[in-house]
Amino acid sequence: MKRYVSVAEELRGMIQGGTLRPGEQLPSIRSLCRTRKLSPATVLHAYEALESDGLIESKPRSGYYVMKPGAALSATPAPRMPAARAQSTRVDVSNLVFEILEASRNREVVPFGSAFPSPSQFPWMKLARYLGSSARHMDPWSTVESLPPGNLELRRQIARRYLRLGMGVGVEQIVVTSGALEALNLSLQAVARSGETIAIESPAFYGCLQAAERLGLKVVEIPTHPREGMDLEALRAALDRHSIHAVWAMTTLQHPTGATMGSDRKRELIKLLAHREIPLIEDDAYAELQFATASPPAKAFDKKGLVLHCGSFSKCLAPGYRLGWVAAGRFSEEIARRKIESSLATSLPIQQGVAQMLRHGGYDAHLARLRRFLATQQSAALDSLRRHFPLGYRVAPPAGGYFLWVECAASVDALEVHRLALDHGITIAPGPMFSARRQFGNFIRLNIGHPWNAATDRAIARLGELVRWSKLPRVKPAVREP
Amino acid sequence: MKRYVSVAEELRGMIQGGTLRPGEQLPSIRSLCRTRKLSPATVLHAYEALESDGLIESKPRSGYYVMKPGAALSATPAPRMPAARAQSTRVDVSNLVFEILEASRNREVVPFGSAFPSPSQFPWMKLARYLGSSARHMDPWSTVESLPPGNLELRRQIARRYLRLGMGVGVEQIVVTSGALEALNLSLQAVARSGETIAIESPAFYGCLQAAERLGLKVVEIPTHPREGMDLEALRAALDRHSIHAVWAMTTLQHPTGATMGSDRKRELIKLLAHREIPLIEDDAYAELQFATASPPAKAFDKKGLVLHCGSFSKCLAPGYRLGWVAAGRFSEEIARRKIESSLATSLPIQQGVAQMLRHGGYDAHLARLRRFLATQQSAALDSLRRHFPLGYRVAPPAGGYFLWVECAASVDALEVHRLALDHGITIAPGPMFSARRQFGNFIRLNIGHPWNAATDRAIARLGELVRWSKLPRVKPAVREP
Repeated sequence: MKRYVSVAEELRGMIQGGTLRPGEQLPSIRSLCRTRKLSPATVLHAYEALESDGLIESKPRSGYYVMKPGAALSATPAPRMPAARAQSTRVDVSNLVFEILEASRNREVVPFGSAFPSPSQFPWMKLARYLGSSARHMDPWSTVESLPPGNLELRRQIARRYLRLGMGVGVEQIVVTSGALEALNLSLQAVARSGETIAIESPAFYGCLQAAERLGLKVVEIPTHPREGMDLEALRAALDRHSIHAVWAMTTLQHPTGATMGSDRKRELIKLLAHREIPLIEDDAYAELQFATASPPAKAFDKKGLVLHCGSFSKCLAPGYRLGWVAAGRFSEEIARRKIESSLATSLPIQQGVAQMLRHGGYDAHLARLRRFLATQQSAALDSLRRHFPLGYRVAPPAGGYFLWVECAASVDALEVHRLALDHGITIAPGPMFSARRQFGNFIRLNIGHPWNAATDRAIARLGELVRWSKLPRVKPAVREP
Repeated sequence: MKRYVSVAEELRGMIQGGTLRPGEQLPSIRSLCRTRKLSPATVLHAYEALESDGLIESKPRSGYYVMKPGAALSATPAPRMPAARAQSTRVDVSNLVFEILEASRNREVVPFGSAFPSPSQFPWMKLARYLGSSARHMDPWSTVESLPPGNLELRRQIARRYLRLGMGVGVEQIVVTSGALEALNLSLQAVARSGETIAIESPAFYGCLQAAERLGLKVVEIPTHPREGMDLEALRAALDRHSIHAVWAMTTLQHPTGATMGSDRKRELIKLLAHREIPLIEDDAYAELQFATASPPAKAFDKKGLVLHCGSFSKCLAPGYRLGWVAAGRFSEEIARRKIESSLATSLPIQQGVAQMLRHGGYDAHLARLRRFLATQQSAALDSLRRHFPLGYRVAPPAGGYFLWVECAASVDALEVHRLALDHGITIAPGPMFSARRQFGNFIRLNIGHPWNAATDRAIARLGELVRWSKLPRVKPAVREP
């Protein structure tokens, strides 16, 4: 361990242990050099590391002070975004996604690596009631009538949700799907053919990478800022340089960063694409999990029917029910046909049951509760991180959802942390899962949606140790000959 | 109309009107020549047509007699199968499938063209009860645990059904899907890549043609006999001639012909493929609708894990619920992954509800009732056909299911009949829907699964008129200039 790191770690322990209290001044650089026999550069380096971690702040011509709580949160620096890259990449997504999924099935495991919302916060009994009663009153003929685009009452309820955002989305352009993932896959098939190129975010939801791989598409990865979302200048440059057939983006609560594009930027994105007649696949699976005011999707600014807006009830209302949709603009009929060809229809009792829940079941009250719960979770998780994670991590707390995208020190190997964590019964989602080029080697995505308790906190502490351990320079074990 | 046809039609009217009664002898050829001033060839031709239609029979050295009821059924000749063809074909399936699907949504329409079972014969209330109670008792954690391959209890129940056929199919190779269509699509993706060639039946289920088209596969169409199923000699020749990556076949109650391969032929099929290590996608969606003893699928003879056996509850238990599976042999893990990537999972309440219904809901009693109902339907439909269809049609009543594959006289244009019938509020499925090369121009598939009544009978009569009209030689209307 470098000298400055051990000094910083020591000070960090004093801050977290309460020896150095919020607002208190740290020893001056000169005094620390003298008492600990350190070079000024080493001490300065340590203080800078603590500062970049948001634990202390420097006051000009005065010295360094322990950050006050609250101030620390906003001061934790955001993870960085990657630089733009000119070439397009053929996607090759690995076994990693499945490995983590497998591990997440075990309920003994601490599921920081899970992509799913905690099942603890959903109105299961109410859903069951609506499901049962819808099935009892199901008109058998409706099995045929509710083929894609889907059950009319459900599509009406979805259209009403759009209306609340001030968007007029006609039922005729809404196609019901078996979850957002099917909606996204169908959308991608509708707008791009094998060998063509699409622009995606970097980092991106791995489902997007897998879909592109399966369809034989090339991807151009557009740097995505963890607060602002997709870099539109980089996108513009990519559109000028490549023949891009579609853009896939999560404009609200992007997965994994949690970034939400402002309305102005969403509007600009649409303008950029409309001008070139390029379709946008807008993955909006987390839209309903925004803590405060809902930001309308980019689709709100679409005048040409170029946006395929994909939504889901899996994160916000009914996990495991597998119900989503796409408001597909000019591609609606094409999508409905592809849906019929690939899976015929979405389960009718599910469509009808959720439609009744949306209509009569107090969906908004449930959403309000769920959002409050998730906001509390986020505070608790950030607090755990501050207490347990080693210096140098960066995080931009998103305005909703249940993920934190954490950038660790550059020397940390997230894949190794993932493997070590598994041995301790903890899953995480390492950064390379979210990149066709396996970038983000020192990033991890944490699912913080499961009820926070002492065990979760201990798991974060353990994870902190593993991260700390991972960034130590060390001799790699020799490869054993077979 | 040719002279002999009008003579035959006249005699047919006399038979159907009761002027000529079952068992009664027809006028001798010589007497008819004399009284009607016809050539012997014309009369002979007319009698042969009536005979091939199963309305009369010739007795050696005695003459022609009106067929007795019952005898007529078995005597109706089977439709013919197409000749083998050496080249492979790039699939191009048209809008026809969707046109007919659209028309079938309207409940005012007589749905002979529908692919779906009549919703009148299913235990909806019981299903609703199991669905509701499963959802109420659903362990929220199971949303994660029941990801593909799927809910364990459901897979156990499916494995038990195999066991009843004497087949040991382990739960670990069963992957739950959203209906058989998804199972088939996933299977096809697992065994063939774009540009590769698969062997399919001719005629084939159009879903197979659409799947091949979407994946950019080439198909070799293997002639399929309406009673015996796929022509194994033609298959062997095709395997020798082409580089075939997979075979897709319905070995039991083939769609559309209704053919069921005998066990010996199923075994031979497996032997043919095992030898060459070629996977078989066995579409067995209608297996549970066999009237009498269930014939085990070809999978029963598979020792190498090369068969992907696709099943469904959509035809036999729960239409619209969208629940199927594939017992995928050595491809199980690959299929489970593809399922996760394309639609993540099958709706959990649906999986659990149907599992409970299979376990406790009297599934076998329901199946027995359903099969009796379908057998009655078939008799009624064959009777309607005999009374109303013009001479020269051929049909091989299948040993189950709810389709009849009817070969009309060679001059009949099934596509035209389809269009005319639509104007009369009747759908049919014209033969070219079932062929990549648009063969079977004079065939129609009739869905006879909807409760048979006077209106259905009238619709068959109307259809008979349209078929009769369609085979008349006539001047085509001139194309209007735009």
